[in-house]
Amino acid sequence: MIVLGIDPGTAATGYGLVQGEPYGSLSLIECGVIRTTARDPLPVRLHELYEETHTLIARHHPDALAIEDVFYAKNVRTTVVLGHARGVILLAAQQHGLAIHEYAPAAIKKTVVGAGAATKAQVQFMVARLLRLKHAPQPSDAADGVAAALAHLMTARLPAPHLR
Amino acid sequence: MIVLGIDPGTAATGYGLVQGEPYGSLSLIECGVIRTTARDPLPVRLHELYEETHTLIARHHPDALAIEDVFYAKNVRTTVVLGHARGVILLAAQQHGLAIHEYAPAAIKKTVVGAGAATKAQVQFMVARLLRLKHAPQPSDAADGVAAALAHLMTARLPAPHLR
Repeated sequence: MIVLGIDPGTAATGYGLVQGEPYGSLSLIECGVIRTTARDPLPVRLHELYEETHTLIARHHPDALAIEDVFYAKNVRTTVVLGHARGVILLAAQQHGLAIHEYAPAAIKKTVVGAGAATKAQVQFMVARLLRLKHAPQPSDAADGVAAALAHLMTARLPAPHLR
Repeated sequence: MIVLGIDPGTAATGYGLVQGEPYGSLSLIECGVIRTTARDPLPVRLHELYEETHTLIARHHPDALAIEDVFYAKNVRTTVVLGHARGVILLAAQQHGLAIHEYAPAAIKKTVVGAGAATKAQVQFMVARLLRLKHAPQPSDAADGVAAALAHLMTARLPAPHLR
């Protein structure tokens, strides 16, 4: 099972593709950041984000999308712009038939690090450890995208067959 | 010039297509409401809204989109969901190369009715009058979509040639 994890942002959207074998290991396929140009109009930036998301899905054929909720920001305008970004990401995933799962940022940290209030550095450390990477994904947005995918794989993992 | 006016909503998105001749009359091409099913997951609803917007644009080839801003709602969650809806509408317009113009609800009412705090009934009345319709567009969401298109045509109209 391949999961695309996304941490949507206005300027930078972190993503990570993680493959998880049932009852087996987790491995990183790709991670990075989709950046859009701040001085471009919002519709142009949304179009870029949509195209990049579409391209990622077409390249790796993930089964599911794990995406951070955005209902927690303090600034309403920032949150609403994030809503626009999230809208086109959800659209791309829906068009490709992915199963879509939303997680609160604290729930992702709780699952991956063990603490809902974990720092960005702690998330990067645990992402590297769980995926046996030599270096933590950079920048932290990319690690946050990977963490969303990991959180889904670690949450969704079925109980072992003899326990069912 | 054909303008697609849109009043984005969580449950119902009003729209109106208005044709405006330079220095001439304004005429209504089509108006209505795009409804999505409240119990469907958000990505499914976004996909429906995107497809309907895409279909409207493909059918009438408008030159511009005039869309209401959404930065004014009192409930943050509602506003963020509206942001998602607005994101996929802007995407569809951008993909078709429309010029995109955003107007605050009060600015639309000010232009169409003459008062930024106009009631829905007043907007419906003036929309019907400006377009010489026998009946006001129903429901009010449809009239709000038409009003957005009218506001753009009435704002963007160039000064008469001899004054330039």
